[in-house]
Amino acid sequence: MELHPRVKSSLSEIERMMEEDLSKEDPSVYGMLAPFLKRGGKRIRPALCLLSCGAVGGKYEDALKPAAIIELFHNFTLIHDDIEDDSRFRRGEPTLHVSYGIPIALNSGDALYTLLWNKLVSLDIKPSGLVKLEQLYAASFKRVAEGQGLELAWIKQGRFDVSEEEYVKMIDGKTSALIGLSCEAGGMLGGAGKRARSALRDYGEKIGAAFQIQDDVLNITGDFEKYKKEIGGDISEGKRTLMVVHCLAKADEKDKQRLISILSSHSKEKADIDEAIAILKKHGSIDYARKKAEKLVKDAKKRIGSLKEGDDKANLLAIADYVVNREM
Amino acid sequence: MELHPRVKSSLSEIERMMEEDLSKEDPSVYGMLAPFLKRGGKRIRPALCLLSCGAVGGKYEDALKPAAIIELFHNFTLIHDDIEDDSRFRRGEPTLHVSYGIPIALNSGDALYTLLWNKLVSLDIKPSGLVKLEQLYAASFKRVAEGQGLELAWIKQGRFDVSEEEYVKMIDGKTSALIGLSCEAGGMLGGAGKRARSALRDYGEKIGAAFQIQDDVLNITGDFEKYKKEIGGDISEGKRTLMVVHCLAKADEKDKQRLISILSSHSKEKADIDEAIAILKKHGSIDYARKKAEKLVKDAKKRIGSLKEGDDKANLLAIADYVVNREM
Repeated sequence: MELHPRVKSSLSEIERMMEEDLSKEDPSVYGMLAPFLKRGGKRIRPALCLLSCGAVGGKYEDALKPAAIIELFHNFTLIHDDIEDDSRFRRGEPTLHVSYGIPIALNSGDALYTLLWNKLVSLDIKPSGLVKLEQLYAASFKRVAEGQGLELAWIKQGRFDVSEEEYVKMIDGKTSALIGLSCEAGGMLGGAGKRARSALRDYGEKIGAAFQIQDDVLNITGDFEKYKKEIGGDISEGKRTLMVVHCLAKADEKDKQRLISILSSHSKEKADIDEAIAILKKHGSIDYARKKAEKLVKDAKKRIGSLKEGDDKANLLAIADYVVNREM
Repeated sequence: MELHPRVKSSLSEIERMMEEDLSKEDPSVYGMLAPFLKRGGKRIRPALCLLSCGAVGGKYEDALKPAAIIELFHNFTLIHDDIEDDSRFRRGEPTLHVSYGIPIALNSGDALYTLLWNKLVSLDIKPSGLVKLEQLYAASFKRVAEGQGLELAWIKQGRFDVSEEEYVKMIDGKTSALIGLSCEAGGMLGGAGKRARSALRDYGEKIGAAFQIQDDVLNITGDFEKYKKEIGGDISEGKRTLMVVHCLAKADEKDKQRLISILSSHSKEKADIDEAIAILKKHGSIDYARKKAEKLVKDAKKRIGSLKEGDDKANLLAIADYVVNREM
């Protein structure tokens, strides 16, 4: 996916800002964070924030710091989620708790989260506007923690009777909330009116959900070289993905019990993971998830149809397509 | 320590508020938090916030929610610190990660931290004042994460050459920052002038440091029935307390090496813990720490000498004494 040059250079500026901010802090507490952030990632959230700001006629400069704060928050959640899921790899390298142990990884996440709040409450915006922006961020962050909490509760309770509605509520927090925030905050900072802001929020929420569904699909059909996470990791972790939810509702008793048994075992054996994937395929669950993601993307694009034409809108539409076409 | 009736009833009001706030949230994510908060604790931070507000002529009502937010933050740090230190007991009951596992305990801490930020950015205060208050909170929270990070780094690196100066910097974050915040925020909300606010901050920072030193002393000399944490837990965790720092600087090579060896082993054997304590006693390190805490308390009391006489000031002075006289 190719972003237009002005966004690309602004994203580089954000990278530079994040690195510089961290370099000012005590290395014994923050030292592992700059290399973690430098591993990259798609920077889709800050890109969406800038593009949303631009698409409503705003200036990227006004969204740079707020966009960086969202990317910092995203990285904070990755560090803690990796501990919670005991994931071994992130962006092709060992997760922080694998390298530094749980105590330091956990605290570095807390330090990062606290640092970004320091940045947020110190943004150079008129207090009345700043407080509104903070409330938007805080409410979205809350949904993220809740989405993660829901998923952990299902795993802990051994619940497999998760409905598609519950699944949607969970990814609504885990992914849609922050991507929706990126777009809405961008719109707000760009001076969007109520309607444009709401369109951007919906667009973001929808592509966020599509992003998560596609991520789950890639987790079992992807290529480690491109995806840079363990293939089948979601199966070992017993995740209730849309594919699993669909399959358990549709499969015969035998396949259903076998799938539950593999997911509950937290097995990392290739044979078990392959068998689980075969069951998902047999019942059309992977295709079902792909189609769901495509529908979400189609709706998302429609939602921003009335925004002014230009590079920013074109990129927003391209990102929506990328979300379901990506391989990493 | 007996607080005057108006503070006591306001603290009950804070308990009620915290419980009610949590009861409104999804029980599968927040369900373990209300019982954790109800375990009690000394509520010293909200008490100090109210008293500081009152001592400068403010109304408790204006400090209730801000005080509750500090107590929520304190509880968030306990949940994460207990994971990081792998502590088994908190307030006489199993720690959250012992009861629910690390993933859920960690996420419930994040959810609590995020919830309190939602409360902070929504306080009913004029935006310009609110942003200043948020900045005060954010900066203090940052010091807390950094203090904890410093201590974890020493343990990870096996560093035992920690100077008293470094120790002070560490507890400055771990404990003084939040107690200092409680007092300064209370003063600010009560309309204190610059001098009174600064006096309250200093008072809080000093009793905070004394509180931590006394906590470390109690950790090895205390009575489980009163203290409600594992006695000698700091020894098993290899903590660099003031007593350890003093002893390592003062002891002969043989005692020094033996103490380092016990601290590094993370042994939970009573014989090892008793031996470490005997070494600390032999070199006068426990007395040294006690005297240090007493000196801090004396200075703290002096610092608020010029505040108006009354119940609030009397309680602030009593809390300072309690910090070093307490057995729990």
